[in-house]
Amino acid sequence: MITLEDVRDAAQRIAPFIRHTPTIAVDATSEPTGVDRLGLKLECLQPTGSFKVRGATNKLLTTPKEQLAAGVVTASGGNHGLAVARAARMAGVAATIFVPKSITPPKVAKLKLLGARVEIIGEIWNDTNRHALDFASREGAAYFHPFADPAVVAGQGTVALELLAERPDIDVVLVAIGGGGLISGMGVALKALKPSIRLIGIEPEGSPTLKASLDAGHVVRLPAVTSRVATMSCAETDPAVFELVRDHVDEVVLVSDEEMLEASRWLWFEFGIAADLSGAAGMAALRTRHFVPDAAASVATLVCGAGPDGIG
Amino acid sequence: MITLEDVRDAAQRIAPFIRHTPTIAVDATSEPTGVDRLGLKLECLQPTGSFKVRGATNKLLTTPKEQLAAGVVTASGGNHGLAVARAARMAGVAATIFVPKSITPPKVAKLKLLGARVEIIGEIWNDTNRHALDFASREGAAYFHPFADPAVVAGQGTVALELLAERPDIDVVLVAIGGGGLISGMGVALKALKPSIRLIGIEPEGSPTLKASLDAGHVVRLPAVTSRVATMSCAETDPAVFELVRDHVDEVVLVSDEEMLEASRWLWFEFGIAADLSGAAGMAALRTRHFVPDAAASVATLVCGAGPDGIG
Repeated sequence: MITLEDVRDAAQRIAPFIRHTPTIAVDATSEPTGVDRLGLKLECLQPTGSFKVRGATNKLLTTPKEQLAAGVVTASGGNHGLAVARAARMAGVAATIFVPKSITPPKVAKLKLLGARVEIIGEIWNDTNRHALDFASREGAAYFHPFADPAVVAGQGTVALELLAERPDIDVVLVAIGGGGLISGMGVALKALKPSIRLIGIEPEGSPTLKASLDAGHVVRLPAVTSRVATMSCAETDPAVFELVRDHVDEVVLVSDEEMLEASRWLWFEFGIAADLSGAAGMAALRTRHFVPDAAASVATLVCGAGPDGIG
Repeated sequence: MITLEDVRDAAQRIAPFIRHTPTIAVDATSEPTGVDRLGLKLECLQPTGSFKVRGATNKLLTTPKEQLAAGVVTASGGNHGLAVARAARMAGVAATIFVPKSITPPKVAKLKLLGARVEIIGEIWNDTNRHALDFASREGAAYFHPFADPAVVAGQGTVALELLAERPDIDVVLVAIGGGGLISGMGVALKALKPSIRLIGIEPEGSPTLKASLDAGHVVRLPAVTSRVATMSCAETDPAVFELVRDHVDEVVLVSDEEMLEASRWLWFEFGIAADLSGAAGMAALRTRHFVPDAAASVATLVCGAGPDGIG
């Protein structure tokens, strides 16, 4: 699907439009975390509050101008929708974001603040997405898939280049999985540059999309998605993304929604970081010891998105 | 009151117990901020959510052990109270935090999570503080003043050393003022190391403590404090702190509570940073153009505390 060169090209392309986020040491906590060298890569500081601006911006900048003339469209009630809205605004074209009925008013408001037209339709993402695809073919708008797109995957992968440049000693990286776009892009870059790195994916117990597919050896559709963590809930991944995950991810660890909430509260209490539940997924895996790194390992986890979940 | 050497000593003393917080560039925003080179020093990432751990930790480490045996005590419903509770826990001694009746339940909960005994008494800080002082003399507990203490001021000043090391080109620094401990400590360090720096204090319109005293040429007691920003509300500063501010601060700018709320919302929308109102004070001064730096200036503002104010 993509190579290290695609990720490097993406990094250069999107650099003027996104942030180089800091990685901070997990130190001075109330109790030891059990991991001596642990870093938090703060992608929650990106515009729109998540790493998703990387992929959406790379997609925008690799889409021929004439294909953008009728605007861009996607289906996402979450961070990808916000990132696409911002990308469209940057390009001065219209964004139409289809969102499921379960969307909360603050998210609609934020999409509108970013200048997007919001269409609330469908009960679950697949329904909503059908309407987005219809709109794209009817109106000629450019459709930006949340993860099954090489430009999006390469864009998300750029976070790995920054992380390795900041922490060349890194041994283990923990990343939350939704559809798999982020971890597959990061996997391509990390394993090409430092094959010894262990890449650990985190999924909700109620949406083990990649875990189920890896266990089966091929893409499977989950019979049900019961996690309430919207940014990590996906019934079925893409075959090309699946192959990248199979080839580059060492282990997928499951955590419960409640464990992510606890970790999000911990990040707020200890660091004043407002992480959404996916942003706390890596810390949840470590705090619950569902994943235990080697004692001497240098570990990093991505705080991939901002949100109020752990506050108060 | 203190010198650069006191700040340097404090920095070395507290280093193992606090965080070196990052300074991030204000770039990739929806609209230009009007300041080309602007940095945010993220003190909201400190343990307990604010810079106050610097001063409280330095006070703890400079207090003779025998004076700590009966525990520590302070009066503060805000970030200083949290920082003192954490310092006491570090030392393994009891903390008693006197708080005014206006305190919110989440703050009481956070103090208790830090292991403190919480005494809710008094309508305003001065009343509450009288009880804290009585307790100190009755029980022999060590009293930690929020700002009128050389060890506290030197501790807060350490943030300036980090900022200058990270951004040696800095020309202008914006800092929120409550009692004046932070800005006076920073002023001593900044002006000693780079006299050309302009240091700008920000106060609420409803609590212009230092502004009123500077205008009068001596410490004055405000007839009324009408700001609802608790961390910046102080009716009267300390004479020694006043002198440091008079000698090291170039200008004090007033902003309204509403302007700080707008800036806090902006930090959340643009950066996913959950800043309390004082943490947004510098951005408020810039966004309202109550303070306009030179076009070529390299500017930094301290996000001095975390809070949910700008979210939602």
